[in-house]
This record gives sequence, C-alpha cells and structure tokens, in this order.
Amino acid sequence: MAALGAQAKVFTEEHRLTYYECDRTGRATLATLIDIAILGSQDQSDALGLTTDFVQQHGVGWVVTQYAINVTRMPRLDEVVTIAVRGSAYNPYFAFREFWIRDANGEELAYITSIWVTMSQTTRKIVKINPELVAPYHSEATKRIPRLPRPISFETTADTISKPYQVRFFDIDPNRHVNNAHYFDWLLDTLPAEFLLQHDLKHVDVRYENEVKYGHTVTAEVNILPTSDAEQVTTSHRIRLGDEKCCEVTIQWQMLATPIN
Amino acid sequence: MAALGAQAKVFTEEHRLTYYECDRTGRATLATLIDIAILGSQDQSDALGLTTDFVQQHGVGWVVTQYAINVTRMPRLDEVVTIAVRGSAYNPYFAFREFWIRDANGEELAYITSIWVTMSQTTRKIVKINPELVAPYHSEATKRIPRLPRPISFETTADTISKPYQVRFFDIDPNRHVNNAHYFDWLLDTLPAEFLLQHDLKHVDVRYENEVKYGHTVTAEVNILPTSDAEQVTTSHRIRLGDEKCCEVTIQWQMLATPIN
Repeated sequence: MAALGAQAKVFTEEHRLTYYECDRTGRATLATLIDIAILGSQDQSDALGLTTDFVQQHGVGWVVTQYAINVTRMPRLDEVVTIAVRGSAYNPYFAFREFWIRDANGEELAYITSIWVTMSQTTRKIVKINPELVAPYHSEATKRIPRLPRPISFETTADTISKPYQVRFFDIDPNRHVNNAHYFDWLLDTLPAEFLLQHDLKHVDVRYENEVKYGHTVTAEVNILPTSDAEQVTTSHRIRLGDEKCCEVTIQWQMLATPIN
Repeated sequence: MAALGAQAKVFTEEHRLTYYECDRTGRATLATLIDIAILGSQDQSDALGLTTDFVQQHGVGWVVTQYAINVTRMPRLDEVVTIAVRGSAYNPYFAFREFWIRDANGEELAYITSIWVTMSQTTRKIVKINPELVAPYHSEATKRIPRLPRPISFETTADTISKPYQVRFFDIDPNRHVNNAHYFDWLLDTLPAEFLLQHDLKHVDVRYENEVKYGHTVTAEVNILPTSDAEQVTTSHRIRLGDEKCCEVTIQWQMLATPIN
C-alpha cells in the first residue's frame, strides 16, 4: 500500500522572504512561515477552482484545528524558498494537509502537517466534508487520518508570563477571519527578547479551540518549562479570552551556540 | 533645466499582493504600501552596493523623517504591481526619494515622496550626508529639496479616540529598528471599523519626530475632523510616548458610494 496521500496533487511555488517578513535576527518569523504555507494552499485551491467563493457557495468554510510544524532551519532574509502543498487525505470530518518549505537546493527547511474541518456558515458548527470540496486535490478518502500531537495542557504557575493583545482591524484577512498566523506573533512576543535571540525554534504543536474576533482582547501566556538539558528548552503557551481557551501551543527550542547580538 | 532628479537612476521590480498583505476588504494595507516601497529602495541600494552594512561602516543609518503618500487606487489582493524608486536629490542634510506603484497597465496607483536624513550611530544625532552614500543613485546635489506638507498639528478634543499599542519583538525588522510602516497599523486601527469599510484612503502626510523602541507602550490618537462635504473626510493622528510626540499624520479619505460589507 502506498503512503497516505501519495496520489494527491502537489502544488509548488516560489517565495522570496522580504525584510518585513523577518525578525531583527534576519530569520523568517513563525507567522511568516504559516502565512506562506497557507498562501501556497490558497493558490493551489484557486488553480483547481476551489476558490473561497466556491467553498462558501456550499455553505461552509475551511477552518484549521491543528498544526504540527517541524523546522530544520528557519528561512532567512532574501532567501527564495519553494513552498509545496498537498491536500493529502480526508475522512468524513477531518482533512489532512501537508506542506514542505525547501531551500534553493531542495533541502527541507520546514515540514508542516495540519488538520482541517469544514464549518457551517450559518450554525458555526463542524459539518461533514463534502467530497466535491476535496476531490480536485486528489485527496485520499480514508477512515483514519494521522493524529497530530496534542500540545501540553497549559498550567498557570507563579512564573507564567502573560500579556494582553487586542485584535486589530488589520488582523482580519480577506477571508474575513482573524489571520491565525498572527496568534504566533502574540504567543512568541510574550517570551523575553533575550530568549528569542538565544534560541532557534525547532518544533511547534498547535491546537485551536475557539475563534477570536475583531475587538477582543486576548491574553497570551507562556511557561518556560524546567529542563535537565539547557540546550533543549520547551515552552508551553495558551491564548485565552477571559476563561475561554482559544488555543494551546507547545514549542521546542534549540539553544544557539552563540546568542544573536 | 530638467525637473529635479530627472537624471537619477530608477530601479523597478514587481510585487504580488498576498492575502496577508491585504485587509478584510481585499485592499492592500497602508503598512503594506510602505513596506513594498521600502523593499524597492532596499533592493536598489543593495544592487548599487549601498547595503545596510556599507552604510553602517560609515557610522550612520538612514532614517525617514517625512512621507507624502498619494493614492489613486490602493492595490488589491493578488494584483501584481510594479514598484519604481529613485533617490532623486539631496542637499547637505536632507535626501529626497520618490516611489511610484503602478498597475499591470502602467497606471499609477500610488506616488510617494519622502525625506531622509543620516543619523550617527554613536550620537543618534543627524549628521551631514556623506556624498559617497548617494552618488551611486545619481542623486542630484542641490541647495533646496522640496518641502513636504506638514501634517495638521494634533489637538486633543473630547471626541479624540485613543488606543494603547505595545511595541512587539516582531515589530523590529532586520535593520534593528521598529519597522515604521507598523505605525500605520496602529494609527488606522484606532478608527472605527465602519469608517475603514466606508472610505478609501486618498492622501497621507506623515512626519516622524521621535523613535519608538521595543517594549514601549505608545498611545495612538485620532480625530475625525468636521467637514462640510461628507464625501471628503480628513483625519488627524498622533502617536505619543507619554508626553513625547513620536509622529503626526494627516489622512484624507473619500467616502465610498457603497460601504464594503
């Protein structure tokens, strides 16, 4: 039996990382990594006639519920990367989409897996996936799609760092939803600058629970977890709106041999 | 006599507006317009050997002090625009740079003029422009460079709308400064969503006074000025850090025949 999704269509495009997509160290931000991955999937969808309008005509919209993001090396300023995406598989309720970001030599920089659902525009509830919305991807119909790792359950401690973030008009993208890549700017901004300058991001597990909306003020929280190996650090994150959990995230970091100045 | 800067080298490049560079109406954001203009000028500078490193080796950095931005039509989602830039002229202390954003037919979408100074990296004071840093642009040495319009002096009133914005780690770009295009996200986010959905931005005058830094919490303030012609609205904006003025901005808007839903 072939690997899951092996027959799905792969769409690729190139993207150059601009200065405004990179942080002060010249590394692309995590928000940018997700922004360009989703750009690839939107371009694939448009090329296959599965435009946002077409999906909406079926009374639904695609919503991502989980990401597992593996970063071999974050793309850098002015680097031209190739984004590859495929809608690999789906079962009645969940679709599994994969993304690869590669450098000019074809080396993998990042590999992203994700789980998507279709949500009714009227009831805002999850509904069965209409096969018409996935057939053009040559997605594999299957019973089981891979389970992505669940982020660590966030526990508030005396050392938890938290900051408020107000959702801005410009956080809403042309799909009329808060661009959920912006969550990563909030999540990582809670970490001290010294931490961000001393570590490379290696792996991220994300689970979205409740949508945030324009005008909301959310709280982003982080714990830097104790570790026996100072070179490998795990951080546990949560975004909440009052008592409601919006998303949980676990990030694994590698300490740099020399911190970035 | 030829027009000022007529002999200056013009650099052009194309740019496609992605979904994450556009607002929920599908129009590029003002921050994006400035981001891509500056991208063009950085690419010109790099192509001429005037890299950030080269400039820093001369002990200085370029700092923008004013923009005058004229928008015929804001670029839209997925549109491919051409960015054109030239370092038109300079006098001992000020450099004058022009930008044009054009659509696929060569029609002007936006025209931006700007005034730049070189700031000493050690004293943070404005210093005379070293001709070596402008000669490769074929900038015209002149006594007088154009004066850009001064924004309206901001006056707090009972109707002033204000919001706090904390400068985030990811607001700092690879040049190690707060990307000042992000100011526009703060400035415009203070306006009610209904206003932004009902108006097209036509002209912006910006004057930067004091730099904001990582960790600062600034206050963005706006007055929607009274008007005798409801179709033409002017807004007056200020960003301040405590009592210190960081920038003042005046924006002219055109009411849309039909508000965007």
